[in-house]
Amino acid sequence: MPNKPVISDDLATQFAAIVGSRHAISDEETMAPYLVERRGLYKGQARLILRPGSTAEVSQILKLADETGTSIIPQGGNTGLVGAQVPFDADRHIVVSLGRMNRIIDVNAGANTLVCEAGTILANIQNAANEAGRLFPLSLGAEGTCQIGGNLSTNAGGTGVLAYGNARDMVLGLELVLANGDILDGLKTLRKDNTGYDLKQLFLGAEGTLGIITAAALKLFARPKSREVAFVGLPEAASAVTLFHKAMDGEGRNLTGFELMPRIGLDFVLTHAPGSRDPLAEPHPWYVLVEVSSGDDADILKTRIENLLVSVIEDGIASDVALAASGQQADDFWGLRTSMSEVQKLEGGSIKHDISVPVSDIPAFLARAEKAVETCIPGARPVPFGHLGDGNLHYNVSQPTGSDKEVFLSHWGNMNEAIHEIVASFNGSISAEHGIGVMKRDLLPRYKSDVEMGLMRTLKKTLDPNNILNPGKML
Amino acid sequence: MPNKPVISDDLATQFAAIVGSRHAISDEETMAPYLVERRGLYKGQARLILRPGSTAEVSQILKLADETGTSIIPQGGNTGLVGAQVPFDADRHIVVSLGRMNRIIDVNAGANTLVCEAGTILANIQNAANEAGRLFPLSLGAEGTCQIGGNLSTNAGGTGVLAYGNARDMVLGLELVLANGDILDGLKTLRKDNTGYDLKQLFLGAEGTLGIITAAALKLFARPKSREVAFVGLPEAASAVTLFHKAMDGEGRNLTGFELMPRIGLDFVLTHAPGSRDPLAEPHPWYVLVEVSSGDDADILKTRIENLLVSVIEDGIASDVALAASGQQADDFWGLRTSMSEVQKLEGGSIKHDISVPVSDIPAFLARAEKAVETCIPGARPVPFGHLGDGNLHYNVSQPTGSDKEVFLSHWGNMNEAIHEIVASFNGSISAEHGIGVMKRDLLPRYKSDVEMGLMRTLKKTLDPNNILNPGKML
Repeated sequence: MPNKPVISDDLATQFAAIVGSRHAISDEETMAPYLVERRGLYKGQARLILRPGSTAEVSQILKLADETGTSIIPQGGNTGLVGAQVPFDADRHIVVSLGRMNRIIDVNAGANTLVCEAGTILANIQNAANEAGRLFPLSLGAEGTCQIGGNLSTNAGGTGVLAYGNARDMVLGLELVLANGDILDGLKTLRKDNTGYDLKQLFLGAEGTLGIITAAALKLFARPKSREVAFVGLPEAASAVTLFHKAMDGEGRNLTGFELMPRIGLDFVLTHAPGSRDPLAEPHPWYVLVEVSSGDDADILKTRIENLLVSVIEDGIASDVALAASGQQADDFWGLRTSMSEVQKLEGGSIKHDISVPVSDIPAFLARAEKAVETCIPGARPVPFGHLGDGNLHYNVSQPTGSDKEVFLSHWGNMNEAIHEIVASFNGSISAEHGIGVMKRDLLPRYKSDVEMGLMRTLKKTLDPNNILNPGKML
Repeated sequence: MPNKPVISDDLATQFAAIVGSRHAISDEETMAPYLVERRGLYKGQARLILRPGSTAEVSQILKLADETGTSIIPQGGNTGLVGAQVPFDADRHIVVSLGRMNRIIDVNAGANTLVCEAGTILANIQNAANEAGRLFPLSLGAEGTCQIGGNLSTNAGGTGVLAYGNARDMVLGLELVLANGDILDGLKTLRKDNTGYDLKQLFLGAEGTLGIITAAALKLFARPKSREVAFVGLPEAASAVTLFHKAMDGEGRNLTGFELMPRIGLDFVLTHAPGSRDPLAEPHPWYVLVEVSSGDDADILKTRIENLLVSVIEDGIASDVALAASGQQADDFWGLRTSMSEVQKLEGGSIKHDISVPVSDIPAFLARAEKAVETCIPGARPVPFGHLGDGNLHYNVSQPTGSDKEVFLSHWGNMNEAIHEIVASFNGSISAEHGIGVMKRDLLPRYKSDVEMGLMRTLKKTLDPNNILNPGKML
């Protein structure tokens, strides 16, 4: 596709006038945080950052963009991990940052609904739900910074998926702006509405390529009265799946967390995270963190999980267990898991994958992936961890001890290819929760059928005929 | 739109050859059950009924239909309530009935997944899940006859929505055939997969206007260990909402049923349903059926619901309660609710609505609707019942006692208009679970914005440019 013309000063002025000059950013220093993705993996450039204050302004921006063929890069909290939110052209890209549109419009505890603008920070939504005696269960590492519009546009996952589903599953209605500036007002809070195509679904997970989400009506849930968290040492990865099945049989929908960790990952945490300590006396090859929570009184839930833990020790499924004795200890157990990604940086380069396979195939996947890693880079250290209950692992690979980081990272593509081929053989996903963005854009056609790619391209062309919305991303 | 040409004998022979003459039905008697909708509300006509045995055959049928501009009416168990599955042209419509494609392909209790063909009867899926120690929670009156392909194409609701969501929420993957015959193979069983647009969402609830679903990968759930069902008498409709909030606070996701019934509805059941009896000693203006179920032991769940029931009596929210003493009695309580639609027939004509509003607005809706009914037809008897926990009521209105049925039914349109206007004022839905089909097709543009209607029409035109898939339905 030929490059679009550069954005003239006159056109830039027109765009700036829509939001007001205070909210149109073009100086280098103020622009910087909108251009650089937090890991520094993608360094972007843009002609202008626009910070609209209303849906009407977003509409005017897109209308002008569509008429002039101007590329718009929608951005929330700029916490995405695949570069979908990054602009890449100093002359042709305009970022539309939703951060000013951060009002929580309505919290209805009775109806279990919350309505807010797209720029609302996820943690603020969680807190508002909490204050109303309810739970908004979407939870992920970036929750103090990421915005709900971005969460919905990427169909975010996180730690609550097992019990509550992905971001998509928490949406009752959306307000959004189409490429031509038309406002689609679907901000209903209904639990059931079968009046025609469910249009909002198209825009959830579309990474801003089909429209810009400006507000959302979200589902709230009952807040659990009690929570128990156990840290379990396992002799092998297959034990984690057996334990998962047992926990699912016994706890059903009370099972709200089931996270896998390898010993090497725990070692990294214990080495690098100040104050961290191993909950168990001896090391074990694998660990799972099991969380149950429910409306039951604490003693009932505790008795049940104690029985489960005793039985898996007796059956030889688990080698050792620790049940958190307090809320603080439960948080500490979670901390071991959630710091696992961060501490890997201190062990040198890390080649990452965000994959899913059917849960029962996890052990076979791990065995084959480990062999593939050793073939690809002898001595490289797999650190597979994550949401085993969802079949979703962050299959990260740390560089061999003492090797050169840059040389190691130069194998990123080969390593990806080897792991993704194994994923494909299990009918899995090469991007379980992080999306496609620019990082995996070139990989997509290999793992999707021609029919799927064709239909996606048709939808993109139909909804955004002038290709103004996040061009070069995903498709 | 001008009529399409009639289907020639030669073309009919070509279609028949795809499925084999045994499975191409054109004689009047054998065709009959495919043409008449069970209430007799719609009497259809078709040139041919095709009963394909494989996805490949469905693909060949649509390819030929697309090339020749032939109208195809997809049909599952023929239990839909808005006429979406009914053909209406003896010379131009071909029914594609999925009933032969009824294999359950895989049940994986460990992964909580079930894969089956689109023609599988819902009850058979429920049973297969049950045999594997799991729950498939989609449940509705027609479950012994309806097919999962139809359930998904209409995004069916039913009694499990409160705890488990609509049919859409139970789908992990779909295989389907596009209008041009292309097969979209998305039969993955992954819990998380953010690789591009979630294409299956387009076809769920699309009433067969965008493609034909041929197979589905479904979510299974833990089977509850215990269940308690209570029948509660209430002084007024508002009490039902108060009780719902209290039950939701206390029981959270264990609350698996919350159904509203008016005294007149219970009277109809007690009069017409043999063997039915009132669970409570005195009559009350309103009732709710409350079901809780969980992985808890029966005594724990029972203690909790008993505490809830005692507290709502003490607080004056409820007037009287009966807790089912056995599984049989629990089924009997449910029977009072599920026979409410059927017994209305014996009270003469009934004008029906399938509406939803936010739960907290139910009492206000009921008050305004009752006035509107009395204005529209003095003496007409509202029998509003249904899934209060979802904000979804079947607002049925029985004819005035002793009046003329045909005269009463001639007011169907006026009555609908009055009720739907009230629904719209609460930002509600004029079709919460039954869909649009032909019944509400003309109403749709009134209750959708031009932007919504425009986008729906654009999608239809893009995915089915020759308008071969269920023409004249929904849009």
